[in-house]
Amino acid sequence: MVQTAPKTQFAEARTPSIEPLRQLVADDMAAVNREILARMASEVSLIPELASHLIAAGGKRIRPLLTLGAARLCGYRGDKHVLLAACVEFIHTATLLHDDVVDESERRRGNSTANVLWGNQPSVLVGDFLFSRAFQLMVETGSLEVLRILANASAVIAEGEVLQLMTANDMDSTEADYLRVIEAKTAALFAAATRVGAVIAGRPEPEVQAMDDYGRFLGIAFQLVDDALDYSSDGATLGKNTGDDFREGKVTLPVALAFDRGTEAERGFWRRVIERPEEQNDDDWSQALRYLERHGTIAETLERARLYGHKAHEALAVFPAVPAREALAEAVDFAIGRAL
Amino acid sequence: MVQTAPKTQFAEARTPSIEPLRQLVADDMAAVNREILARMASEVSLIPELASHLIAAGGKRIRPLLTLGAARLCGYRGDKHVLLAACVEFIHTATLLHDDVVDESERRRGNSTANVLWGNQPSVLVGDFLFSRAFQLMVETGSLEVLRILANASAVIAEGEVLQLMTANDMDSTEADYLRVIEAKTAALFAAATRVGAVIAGRPEPEVQAMDDYGRFLGIAFQLVDDALDYSSDGATLGKNTGDDFREGKVTLPVALAFDRGTEAERGFWRRVIERPEEQNDDDWSQALRYLERHGTIAETLERARLYGHKAHEALAVFPAVPAREALAEAVDFAIGRAL
Repeated sequence: MVQTAPKTQFAEARTPSIEPLRQLVADDMAAVNREILARMASEVSLIPELASHLIAAGGKRIRPLLTLGAARLCGYRGDKHVLLAACVEFIHTATLLHDDVVDESERRRGNSTANVLWGNQPSVLVGDFLFSRAFQLMVETGSLEVLRILANASAVIAEGEVLQLMTANDMDSTEADYLRVIEAKTAALFAAATRVGAVIAGRPEPEVQAMDDYGRFLGIAFQLVDDALDYSSDGATLGKNTGDDFREGKVTLPVALAFDRGTEAERGFWRRVIERPEEQNDDDWSQALRYLERHGTIAETLERARLYGHKAHEALAVFPAVPAREALAEAVDFAIGRAL
Repeated sequence: MVQTAPKTQFAEARTPSIEPLRQLVADDMAAVNREILARMASEVSLIPELASHLIAAGGKRIRPLLTLGAARLCGYRGDKHVLLAACVEFIHTATLLHDDVVDESERRRGNSTANVLWGNQPSVLVGDFLFSRAFQLMVETGSLEVLRILANASAVIAEGEVLQLMTANDMDSTEADYLRVIEAKTAALFAAATRVGAVIAGRPEPEVQAMDDYGRFLGIAFQLVDDALDYSSDGATLGKNTGDDFREGKVTLPVALAFDRGTEAERGFWRRVIERPEEQNDDDWSQALRYLERHGTIAETLERARLYGHKAHEALAVFPAVPAREALAEAVDFAIGRAL
């Protein structure tokens, strides 16, 4: 591991963007999109109907992009990366469907959620279907190592989601709990998405580990930024409702830090609004924003995101400075730059 | 394929039982139970808590028994069948957790369901965890063929569950729809459970297919009996609420047949109680039982179960008449005999 960040980190003067990565793997991504559409198919018409509502709505498809980018950087020359990228997106989509049921969410990517449009029942079952499809895709790659990585990641994601549920509405949950949750529910899939790119390319262990580190640190940074943005005043940025975490009483880092540093009165406020969110009143949201501002916890959350972004950059240093490395490096700055 | 049923079919004078199979693989089953307990473990305490509620409550563990019995009949001499039997039970448990959320069930195996005790949210997520664990167990067997079989079965199960949802509360759904549903939601896992026993034993294709057929036909018979028993007067038989299917407006075979054969008035009755079950009144249940009795559709459903049981027996004919074959044959009669 290098001691200093590679020079990629501040090389870009323009606003960091995901576009260089997207352009680099544009042909592969077109193949992934075809694969996704083909694999959503089922004689049971509600399945493609519901799945395409979420998948067609877009989203940035950042996870499959990362798999394709990792495979490219690792010099992979086959077609299994396309299957794996589709597989990673299916796992992600399945977790979104189940998350929205669990969180009783109403908006996602600017649209009504599937659970609102079709009810919880098909959302649960179509999630199960997509998850099974993901494993069918993995089997087609013929790599047990790939199956091992993604089965492990799936179990860790589910554990993270359950832990998130257990720590929600509990102001005694800790910053450490929060980190465990985001490492499990978000970073594990990012890490698996990039690791499998190195694995199918047959790269040696240090590079496989570097790709895993890159994905994991990027995932943590990504979620930290998401959780900071949830307390921004402009919901349009994320295409979802700002304030969701607050209304659901999730103890994300901005809140955990504000609680730690708050006066007795502030701590009482956080206990009330987080532990009994159903009693929140119209003034609580702006009061919460004032407390977060007073203790600078949004800024600190973003600073943590930058630290993890730095680690993601460092992980790339074992690879040569080819366009794929530059594009993956810029993806980190893009993930963090969403908050600016 | 033989033209006549093997002599095993009516060889037993005493009441058919699952006990011979259970005793035959008792040591293996003890290992499976240890594996299940070990693999439910998680640092996230709610996971083993909720999973053990359902798994410890017992149930007959018929699916893992079938995997062990199939492996025994196929002469398997390793330890992967234990992992696979645990895996099959995990897949089944995951589907039960999700089913109970989808059906809003309140009772299962004589206990309150997990969704009633802990809420829908952890039931969905712990189901996802167990499903992921199942795939981790499969990876440990090192067999891509096993992974292919069980990933396919999982996708088919989810499709069957969605189809069941689409055909519920719809008296225009057909007997063919019903058969598709039970083949997918129940028989596919039975078939996979027995097929993998032959696959890990390295048996030739005709025997693999015979084990698949045996499991599939047994699964169909099993579900037909379940659906008949749901209209029996004694709920204790199944350890679940009699009348669940009726209250949920599922179009199972007894109802589909009674609708086909009913007078205009009867068909009006079925439309009302099945398509708008929330409007059912106290007399509707006994009225439904009278109509089913009038057209003999419970008896006919059980007769269909016996026909599929016969096919399951036939499938066993390619194997020698060893104790494992006798035990698997008796399991068929046991599944059907539950209704007597």
